[in-house]
Amino acid sequence: MTQERLREGAKAFAKKVFDDIREFSRDPVVGISRQGYGPLENQAHEYLKNIARELDLEIKVDRCGNLFLTLPGKDRSLPCYMTGSHADSVPQGGHYDGLAGVVAAITTLWWMRKIGFQPKRDVTMVVFRMEESSWFGKAYVGSLAMAGQLTREDLALKHRNKDQTLAEAIREAGFDPEDMVKTEPSIDFSKIAAFTELHIEQGPTLDSQDKARVGIVTGIRGNLRHKTCRCIGQTAHSGAVDKQYRHDAVMAMAEMLHRMEKHWAEWLVRGEDLVFTVGVFKTAPSSAIAIIPGEVSFSVDMRSLSMDTLDRFHKLLVAECDAVGADRGVHFEFDRTLVCKAADVDKKLFNHLKDAAQKAGIDVMDIPSGAGHDSAVMADMGVPVTMIFVANQDGSHNANEKMKLEDFMLGTEVLFTSIATYD
Amino acid sequence: MTQERLREGAKAFAKKVFDDIREFSRDPVVGISRQGYGPLENQAHEYLKNIARELDLEIKVDRCGNLFLTLPGKDRSLPCYMTGSHADSVPQGGHYDGLAGVVAAITTLWWMRKIGFQPKRDVTMVVFRMEESSWFGKAYVGSLAMAGQLTREDLALKHRNKDQTLAEAIREAGFDPEDMVKTEPSIDFSKIAAFTELHIEQGPTLDSQDKARVGIVTGIRGNLRHKTCRCIGQTAHSGAVDKQYRHDAVMAMAEMLHRMEKHWAEWLVRGEDLVFTVGVFKTAPSSAIAIIPGEVSFSVDMRSLSMDTLDRFHKLLVAECDAVGADRGVHFEFDRTLVCKAADVDKKLFNHLKDAAQKAGIDVMDIPSGAGHDSAVMADMGVPVTMIFVANQDGSHNANEKMKLEDFMLGTEVLFTSIATYD
Repeated sequence: MTQERLREGAKAFAKKVFDDIREFSRDPVVGISRQGYGPLENQAHEYLKNIARELDLEIKVDRCGNLFLTLPGKDRSLPCYMTGSHADSVPQGGHYDGLAGVVAAITTLWWMRKIGFQPKRDVTMVVFRMEESSWFGKAYVGSLAMAGQLTREDLALKHRNKDQTLAEAIREAGFDPEDMVKTEPSIDFSKIAAFTELHIEQGPTLDSQDKARVGIVTGIRGNLRHKTCRCIGQTAHSGAVDKQYRHDAVMAMAEMLHRMEKHWAEWLVRGEDLVFTVGVFKTAPSSAIAIIPGEVSFSVDMRSLSMDTLDRFHKLLVAECDAVGADRGVHFEFDRTLVCKAADVDKKLFNHLKDAAQKAGIDVMDIPSGAGHDSAVMADMGVPVTMIFVANQDGSHNANEKMKLEDFMLGTEVLFTSIATYD
Repeated sequence: MTQERLREGAKAFAKKVFDDIREFSRDPVVGISRQGYGPLENQAHEYLKNIARELDLEIKVDRCGNLFLTLPGKDRSLPCYMTGSHADSVPQGGHYDGLAGVVAAITTLWWMRKIGFQPKRDVTMVVFRMEESSWFGKAYVGSLAMAGQLTREDLALKHRNKDQTLAEAIREAGFDPEDMVKTEPSIDFSKIAAFTELHIEQGPTLDSQDKARVGIVTGIRGNLRHKTCRCIGQTAHSGAVDKQYRHDAVMAMAEMLHRMEKHWAEWLVRGEDLVFTVGVFKTAPSSAIAIIPGEVSFSVDMRSLSMDTLDRFHKLLVAECDAVGADRGVHFEFDRTLVCKAADVDKKLFNHLKDAAQKAGIDVMDIPSGAGHDSAVMADMGVPVTMIFVANQDGSHNANEKMKLEDFMLGTEVLFTSIATYD
């Protein structure tokens, strides 16, 4: 089989897997709905097990329902090279978030079987359970449980629109909630030499240019959040109170945000990695057209590869709120600061992936991961981690999410080459 | 009776009227609730009629329920000097909005009777029905009906929290809704030589200084409004999309508002009268902490003594929205522009009031009226109009609204002197 025909074969295999899983995952209204620990996630796992049987892979399921498919290496005592992602989706989401990494992993194993390649060490494909937080409000449920980091409070979380707890959903999927909250990890993380997760970018950076359709991730951004802060001014008659007597919460917010946006731009110029979002901004329920707004509630989400950057930008936010507040006779109230650690990629593994891309003749770009991924949990458990990003269109976490199969195959070939040339 | 004892007597009279009306107007929860065309407004009118009988005033009620109490002048053929205000309140409102002008008028008539003063022309006190828009969403119902300007659409308006139309409320109060929508005015406006309404300021300008506790109104601000405009950007993942790829509706709004606020400050410096309020500002219901906001809905309320200023500031708003939109890849949608005309005060009457204040030895300040008043309807009907403002505390349209009786008496004495020295 020529290299070209092999590539065509791998592409056809990947397309069939995507198509088969899409077929049973359609939401009745729009897009894809494959809930973690729901029947369709189960069905995706069963579907992958069937392929694993055809490819003669070892099949293992941990106590939390995470699936492991292993192509045994020559020396089974060596820690494995692991790859994979999650098979659940957000409600009415797209077809590629998570699933791309799953299909890339199974395609890589298919490819190795096809050419009769046996690597030095085991190659294990993992399919994480419930990565998406949209269903029960908690992200990384499968990988956190695997790492012994899920809590009883998490199990009590309620479904977004059903009267069901996470524990009940897990039981319905055929697993024991008690097994989910053991503090002992469900697998031996020291037996993983390297972990590479392929994922769609979920942002426009790769897709906005033609040179490199594949990214090698430089780190996973941590985030610092406030769920609900408030800006408190003073309501008054919109006609009867002149500018100098106003304590307008909306105008105070506008100045504060405008200042922060300018700082943000300056920080980017000097090379810091940072995004800053006020996703929710609402005047009080009693607000009205003819009342000077006395209260705004708002959320804050800032993310960076550097926790130090987040810490300093957060201090700047508080300082600017103080300054604007003092100028305008308003004050800002911050709720609890929620922090999610940034994850470093492994420098050596990162360089190895760049080498692999070069060997495969595929242009790649360095790119940070803005979204969180199971990879962050793996990194937190001490596993050397890298990620491969594939260009995608129309964002993510929505039914319009798109990805070109050609781009996906470039990413998959970088993954294949990285694993094949690891030893 | 010395002048001082007379003043004390007038003050005691005014206090009793305020106290009596407060007594039957208390809202069960908080503040004052005296709905236009409701039983308590009726009761206030009956209460005033009783005083009128004691003072031997002529009592007249027009077909719309507006009350007219007249102290006959020496020459009854001359057009009258009219004064008064409205006796309804907003729900759970304060005690002085509207009522202050009613009490000032009746106190003025009491005073004239007390000193046996008969003016050259009739002095007529008017008590307008339903000035407040909070109950049925329409302001100036009584005075507009009197002017022949109320419409059938207005009669179909629904009560804020009952299943009742304005027409039904009017019928319940003892009047015929058909009489409310006649296009013929209910009174002869050419028989009014001058109209002066005393009102609390509803803003902090007078109360923020000690020199003048009374204001002479330079004009009633018109307003230009949009109920619900939208800023449309693009939702995206708050972590995965970098600054240069964002179309963040909240950040666009922040820049736009910050620009408009700077323009506003400059316009004030160069002497234009202007207030600008975005009272409602809400990200879409689907907005979330981790999503770049793709939609904001907001209201616009701008007011000025000059409709030309409003027109130009509105054009500037649209231009800045276009500019910010083009810069950021967002766009702004404006709903229908609602315009309420500014009302000029009568220059001659204004000067007469300033003279009257000087004669009475009372310091006054020129001040625009930001809120709308029945006076605007009177001015629109061609009546020479002025207003007297009295300092008040803690805003208006709320249960905390306050006014000092001493300040009120200064305003009332300006009113008395203006009427007494008119001819």
